[in-house]
Amino acid sequence: MNTLVIAVAGTGVLALVFAAWRARIVAAADPGTPRMIEIAGYIREGAMAFLRRQYQTLLYFVIGVAALLTAANWSQGTSLVALAFATGALCSALAGYFGMRVATLANVRTSAAARTSIAQALHIAFTGGSVMGMCVVGLGVLGLSLLYLLFTAIFGSDIASVTGPVLAVLSGFSLGASSIALFARVGGGIYTKAADIGADLVGKLEVGIPEDDPRNPAAIADAVGDNVGDVAGMGADLFESYVGAILGAMILGIPYAVSIGVPESEQLNFVILPLALAGLGILVSIGSTFLVRTSEEANPQRALNLGVFGSVFFMIPLTYFAIRWVVPGDALALLGSMVLGLVGGLGIAFSTEYYTAGDYGPVDAISASSLTGAATNLISGLAVGMQSTAVPTLIIAAALVGSYSLAGLYGIALGGLGMLSTVGIQLAVDAYGPIADNAGGICEMSNLPREVRERTDRLDAVGNTTAAMGKGFAIGSAALTALALFSAFQTQARLSALDLLNPVVMAGVFVGGMVPFLFSSLAMRAVGDAAGEMIEEVRRQFKEIPGLMEGTATADYARCVDISTRAALQRMMLPGLLAVVIPVAVGFLAGKQALGGLLAGVTVTGVLLALFMSNAGGAWDNAKKNIEGGAHGGKGSPAHQAAVVGDTVGDPFKDTAGPSLNILIKLMAVVAVVIAPLIA
Amino acid sequence: MNTLVIAVAGTGVLALVFAAWRARIVAAADPGTPRMIEIAGYIREGAMAFLRRQYQTLLYFVIGVAALLTAANWSQGTSLVALAFATGALCSALAGYFGMRVATLANVRTSAAARTSIAQALHIAFTGGSVMGMCVVGLGVLGLSLLYLLFTAIFGSDIASVTGPVLAVLSGFSLGASSIALFARVGGGIYTKAADIGADLVGKLEVGIPEDDPRNPAAIADAVGDNVGDVAGMGADLFESYVGAILGAMILGIPYAVSIGVPESEQLNFVILPLALAGLGILVSIGSTFLVRTSEEANPQRALNLGVFGSVFFMIPLTYFAIRWVVPGDALALLGSMVLGLVGGLGIAFSTEYYTAGDYGPVDAISASSLTGAATNLISGLAVGMQSTAVPTLIIAAALVGSYSLAGLYGIALGGLGMLSTVGIQLAVDAYGPIADNAGGICEMSNLPREVRERTDRLDAVGNTTAAMGKGFAIGSAALTALALFSAFQTQARLSALDLLNPVVMAGVFVGGMVPFLFSSLAMRAVGDAAGEMIEEVRRQFKEIPGLMEGTATADYARCVDISTRAALQRMMLPGLLAVVIPVAVGFLAGKQALGGLLAGVTVTGVLLALFMSNAGGAWDNAKKNIEGGAHGGKGSPAHQAAVVGDTVGDPFKDTAGPSLNILIKLMAVVAVVIAPLIA
Repeated sequence: MNTLVIAVAGTGVLALVFAAWRARIVAAADPGTPRMIEIAGYIREGAMAFLRRQYQTLLYFVIGVAALLTAANWSQGTSLVALAFATGALCSALAGYFGMRVATLANVRTSAAARTSIAQALHIAFTGGSVMGMCVVGLGVLGLSLLYLLFTAIFGSDIASVTGPVLAVLSGFSLGASSIALFARVGGGIYTKAADIGADLVGKLEVGIPEDDPRNPAAIADAVGDNVGDVAGMGADLFESYVGAILGAMILGIPYAVSIGVPESEQLNFVILPLALAGLGILVSIGSTFLVRTSEEANPQRALNLGVFGSVFFMIPLTYFAIRWVVPGDALALLGSMVLGLVGGLGIAFSTEYYTAGDYGPVDAISASSLTGAATNLISGLAVGMQSTAVPTLIIAAALVGSYSLAGLYGIALGGLGMLSTVGIQLAVDAYGPIADNAGGICEMSNLPREVRERTDRLDAVGNTTAAMGKGFAIGSAALTALALFSAFQTQARLSALDLLNPVVMAGVFVGGMVPFLFSSLAMRAVGDAAGEMIEEVRRQFKEIPGLMEGTATADYARCVDISTRAALQRMMLPGLLAVVIPVAVGFLAGKQALGGLLAGVTVTGVLLALFMSNAGGAWDNAKKNIEGGAHGGKGSPAHQAAVVGDTVGDPFKDTAGPSLNILIKLMAVVAVVIAPLIA
Repeated sequence: MNTLVIAVAGTGVLALVFAAWRARIVAAADPGTPRMIEIAGYIREGAMAFLRRQYQTLLYFVIGVAALLTAANWSQGTSLVALAFATGALCSALAGYFGMRVATLANVRTSAAARTSIAQALHIAFTGGSVMGMCVVGLGVLGLSLLYLLFTAIFGSDIASVTGPVLAVLSGFSLGASSIALFARVGGGIYTKAADIGADLVGKLEVGIPEDDPRNPAAIADAVGDNVGDVAGMGADLFESYVGAILGAMILGIPYAVSIGVPESEQLNFVILPLALAGLGILVSIGSTFLVRTSEEANPQRALNLGVFGSVFFMIPLTYFAIRWVVPGDALALLGSMVLGLVGGLGIAFSTEYYTAGDYGPVDAISASSLTGAATNLISGLAVGMQSTAVPTLIIAAALVGSYSLAGLYGIALGGLGMLSTVGIQLAVDAYGPIADNAGGICEMSNLPREVRERTDRLDAVGNTTAAMGKGFAIGSAALTALALFSAFQTQARLSALDLLNPVVMAGVFVGGMVPFLFSSLAMRAVGDAAGEMIEEVRRQFKEIPGLMEGTATADYARCVDISTRAALQRMMLPGLLAVVIPVAVGFLAGKQALGGLLAGVTVTGVLLALFMSNAGGAWDNAKKNIEGGAHGGKGSPAHQAAVVGDTVGDPFKDTAGPSLNILIKLMAVVAVVIAPLIA
């Protein structure tokens, strides 16, 4: 089977080569006027400086955890888990770094292209996004397959070695990816929302200047935030999802093979299958990027949809043949599990769309409740967010039971992987969003003609449907992958049952259920505090810098960038550490039963809170946009002021705490998987 | 043992006689000036009219459920469960009715007494509250013990009959109590908060008149709301907690007795013990009411503290002797479980106090964040609420494991009961609060001299510490009682294990975890919608009624009362029905494993959301009070306006959804206990 693994590694290399080629296309495009280059320079400089400082800070964390892992595994002589961990962390960091480098080149080049052609602007923005997408899948697949080859070379590639040390050590890679992702999401989320809130509340409400106005001292910090939060943060996030989903399925492969009576000689194929499917997904993703092209008149949304839906369309039959080719047994059952995950993800996406898009009842109700003030807007939005948990939860429960009945725990893992198999192109579309957003900001700050900004606005407005789909997949796959990792923990910890009638398990569920609340609280408070500081700084600059409002003086952008940077770096540490320390502490102090309960509790409330917060935030955002579009009095009306309050509260909900929770639940499960052999 | 049960019934009768005597004292007191009598008449009329209509609506529900219970149990020939259910519902309704009748007499008499003496005013208000307290414990103990005697007379009082049909049928009483309580809490909560928000947002912010000003069209509805929400709603709430805690312990008595090897002849004593302890609690509560008296100079808080802490002080040693007298075995282990519950409840209360009182860091942070606007105030309050879940969860987990290790599942049930054993006096203090609050409103609306209002304000301000303690006990006991009922369900459904590795169980946990979100969403939206309607009505009256602001015309109070009444009655039904229908549907369609998972999920997220919502609401409330007390610019400043928004969002959090969740988790567990024999 190692030949197949080498081939999979080849697809990883191919993805990286493709990414490098796309990056050169972006770099070669016209960067626009000197003013545009200057503005883009500020943004790029701020973003890269933040990433550098963030990685420096995390270096200590990586070294510390690697040392602990080496010490803990000293007796078994497998300090290789520390190596895997460091490699995972490095790959995650590289994916974020490459993606952001290209995104901060693509933004200004998209603005420049928009001066003449919307088709060309879409091409640049999407090409920039596809670099991030391909880096993520390329590094993920390459890292996992090379480490797998290395560890089977060291420990042997018989069944006992693979189910024993090889997969145990390989899970370190996932641990590295997940922990960096959590810091990146939380740090990026704090950065971007502190800047966004500061810029909006003072700029729009108090001073009355438009979005992205260069007079706003927080304008650059806001644009930097889009990159560090939405590009680097999201890249690290999806890198960890992808790796976690593949690893979870690999660990559950042999128990499934044994349960359906596959002869020993073919059992390993079930471990390789998830890697092979990931490799296939890379080929399909690369192919699908060529579907994304538009003309001047056509709706750019169609081009993006064609890419994403096209990839799914090709992926399903190819998956079937791949399964039949790689493993014996009932290929339809395995395909069914994957498709169930995919359909479930689509169902969650439609539900997300219903609760958060401006065209349906829930958002209308929030807009209407803004007429009686901010308080009723908030009550209404919180209610919508809470209600929006119902349908996705039922879908997850159904997918869970359905994919289990098709292919056991392995089926659950494949369901999670199903949503992520074409992540290469999905992420390209996701990363396209902040590039188009940034391009619009650069137009505004460079005083380009109105029609250029209108073109970038059109580009920015599309991709929402695909982004909603991405969110649905992110939550659905997080739930299924967390449950797969939870099962992988039980396999690795040799737990035969986890009985809720045992009060130790129930106490674990309680404490685990609390962790997402505590974690969200820390993230929210960090954003609140940093935003408060930002608001005061922006107010101060408008008061103290003469000529700023008139446009004769320049704002002190650097101070606002600094506030966001400091807040993000300081306040990301505690929530990130909690996620690692809590499962370790519970596992070693209270035992594996309590740790199992903890994981179940974290997963359930983590998914629910993530749905609540993401959807409430999205709904408030679109309620505000409805009013800005003319409903209930339009811009500047009391209803608008009320809706801005709701939107601002929703910012840390949907862009800091909410998406971080998806990582949290998997990170805690991966920590449990890694320490499982020690507490078994 | 039946002699002991008869004696326990006697303490129930004693409590009711005591309540009747106290009610006559209140009724005989001076009701004040004609204007005061008129205002109080409006309030009383509105409150009693609401209660009447609410009970009429619920009558259909009671008849429907009783019919279903009869039909479902037809084959077993035990339609007695329907009788028990109807009796439980009736007792709950009676407790609410008596309590509110007296509270609406006591409010105006407290105002009248406050014209001359604060000691006398405290006496009237507390006496009024104690009627509610004694009705609740008297009806609870009397109902349970008489039905127990009846059912043992019918089925026999041998072990098999008691563990079989007797306790199964008796659980119908708890079902009746819990379902009425849920409707009362949700309906009362919608009523009171719609009125409160409408009165405050227009009165204070838009028109600028003080709290309880008679010119405010929603003033009467607001005062009525205090009675239907805080008196009748809370009475029904504690009635169900009390009954649920006793019943849960009774069901788990024999399994515990068997597990510690008690001979069969003495096993029933463990079933009777919870009833006996409840009877003892009544005696201690009655005695402790005499400790509550104050002088003109002393702090009235001391008097209330003396009553509550005095009752606990006497209860603990008496409990020890009662346990030794009633049951064989290790009395200290059982006492230890109860005390663990009591200490846990106190711990939760202190944590609640820390996160919600104006003197500590969290509320200070919310006040300070109001300086940068409503959005940062809200982010800060949401973060405080989420953070406040941590310590109580750890306490609950510790109490759970601790009381289990002392006395098994029975110990968990006794822990829950421990917090509620002196509920007679605790509830007297709780009900004292809204009476004093109403008394202040009547002073304002009757234009009594400033110093009278100052006296009632002093009375209203105390009782906060004891109320916080009551909240801590409510949440702690809800968690332990729900877990005890969860165990009782397993006993009744003959579940040997509930394995989280089984995806059906895990799917149940997911769906169960979602229910509190959906439920809260319905409650919040009901308040939001009704408050919006109320705001528009109050705005309309100020605009359309000439002379209203000048005090020459009278507001149309009845229309505001009507808005609250209609909203409460219409919108309480769906959330209440959900709580009953969901466990039945899951139990019959997906089986007992899924139902067990559902209960675990409901309990965990229910407790967490209740803590989050109650504490966030309390913290916002006190942050606003801090600012009104002069911090950050004081009344009318921008920070104050921001804090009012937070306080308003907190209203449905802390007074509608939050406390209802405590009932929800127990109601769903009781439903499961009742249907357990059918799905076993």
